[in-house]
Amino acid sequence: MKIARFEAREGVRLGVVEAEYITSITDRIAGAPAEMIELIERWSDLKEAVSALPRAADYAIADVTMLAPVPRPGKIMGIGLNYADHAAEAGLKPPEHQIWFTKAVTAVTGPYAPIERPLASMALDYEAEMVMIIGKRCRHVSREQAESVIFGFCVGNDVSVRDWQHRSGQFAIGKSFDTHAPFGPYIVTADEVDVSALDIRCLVNGEERQHSNTSHLIFDCFAQIEHLSQAMTLEPGDVIYTGTPSGVGAVMAPPQWLVPGDRVRVEIEKLGHIENVVIAEPAA
Amino acid sequence: MKIARFEAREGVRLGVVEAEYITSITDRIAGAPAEMIELIERWSDLKEAVSALPRAADYAIADVTMLAPVPRPGKIMGIGLNYADHAAEAGLKPPEHQIWFTKAVTAVTGPYAPIERPLASMALDYEAEMVMIIGKRCRHVSREQAESVIFGFCVGNDVSVRDWQHRSGQFAIGKSFDTHAPFGPYIVTADEVDVSALDIRCLVNGEERQHSNTSHLIFDCFAQIEHLSQAMTLEPGDVIYTGTPSGVGAVMAPPQWLVPGDRVRVEIEKLGHIENVVIAEPAA
Repeated sequence: MKIARFEAREGVRLGVVEAEYITSITDRIAGAPAEMIELIERWSDLKEAVSALPRAADYAIADVTMLAPVPRPGKIMGIGLNYADHAAEAGLKPPEHQIWFTKAVTAVTGPYAPIERPLASMALDYEAEMVMIIGKRCRHVSREQAESVIFGFCVGNDVSVRDWQHRSGQFAIGKSFDTHAPFGPYIVTADEVDVSALDIRCLVNGEERQHSNTSHLIFDCFAQIEHLSQAMTLEPGDVIYTGTPSGVGAVMAPPQWLVPGDRVRVEIEKLGHIENVVIAEPAA
Repeated sequence: MKIARFEAREGVRLGVVEAEYITSITDRIAGAPAEMIELIERWSDLKEAVSALPRAADYAIADVTMLAPVPRPGKIMGIGLNYADHAAEAGLKPPEHQIWFTKAVTAVTGPYAPIERPLASMALDYEAEMVMIIGKRCRHVSREQAESVIFGFCVGNDVSVRDWQHRSGQFAIGKSFDTHAPFGPYIVTADEVDVSALDIRCLVNGEERQHSNTSHLIFDCFAQIEHLSQAMTLEPGDVIYTGTPSGVGAVMAPPQWLVPGDRVRVEIEKLGHIENVVIAEPAA
């Protein structure tokens, strides 16, 4: 199933997407959770009722605002240099160890919301990524068990401010500017999609900048969960950006930074697309 | 005032600490917030009522369990190499730019709770730090305005797993193991304490390992807020670890890792102390 969070005239809703329409979970299931994290936590109880909903065109996608599926995750983790081609373009060998950084939860924004070129930098860049949403509270998950703790997948852009990312050696701030964690447009539940070989593309103003396939991930989703969960408890709704392929603006000659007016689209086979227009951050 | 979050027989409470006793905000103010973040958000309205509470020994500290003041902050940021002596012991020059990393919110634990030596590593280390708690939602805060967005201060230990911290170049995972973000024992509100020159110490089993003064911070609290808020919105309850002085176990020869049974105490003049016993993480 494709589970969306969206804003309609009646307020924020959760729903099931089919083609261009949404069936409202919020309106059709008594006592349904108001927020995605609670839906994920209660999924084993609710899945059957949600599946059984008659597919009704309660809303047309065109008439609502699609929102970030998880507006306030417990954590957002991102992995660096996780496609061999992206490591090569950065002049680096494929990493021996997984390289993890974080994005601040205040950076979350919607799948079609604007992203800001900040006042603090011109070096604004895109990174097309598949995003994984954790389904169960877990620790010490083996590769073999990892599939069971994934709720689903969506499309993300790991928007990056390159000068801030690199000048201290630690990526955290450069990855955490407000509006720099768009993802969506909905979560495709893990039982419905095999993500081992999906085409992934990034287009800026219609021009293809990144094009690869999730089969080229150096550390796949299961390896990522195994690694992270050795250290920390993962929780329902945690957001994992799984890495970006080659073609980022920073490595073009000269670098092609995003500028206000640019339209950045990330699309992944079977997971849909997100599209964000760059705007100048309003003066402080 | 010293604002604590604690667990009594009646449940989790917020209260005002004076000497060895706590006056319960939860029981004495009708409609008082149940959690610290809400108290901070409503502080301008509630401060007067809380100040006016007759100081009553509703609870003795000895009879309750002191809890992490903010159990689920939006973010936990930590700054690296922010005392000149610590930079020197790590063989590094004082940084030109602020070096920020994150600790996962799942790492939060109480001021007197155990900290785990994880199954995944032996390289467990302490870092005595003053912790700042953000009071207001804000962005683009100048150095001059920074004082107005601080709620208060407490004592923290930026517990670190050194091999995981350093092997990928990104500190995030090595700083984020479960139980590795103890802080407390209460928040001293910013109006009550001048933190520009406070003695800070770390003792392991009674032996002094770190001893410095917050006057030696390279980037002070105001500079930290100015820097972070250029990139991201800070929110009430956000937790900022402000850096550790020299004396960490990693730089001793040979390195002195924490082992189960060790008792790690961090104390800061006017802010109290926290004390955590190291235990072995239970088998998975």
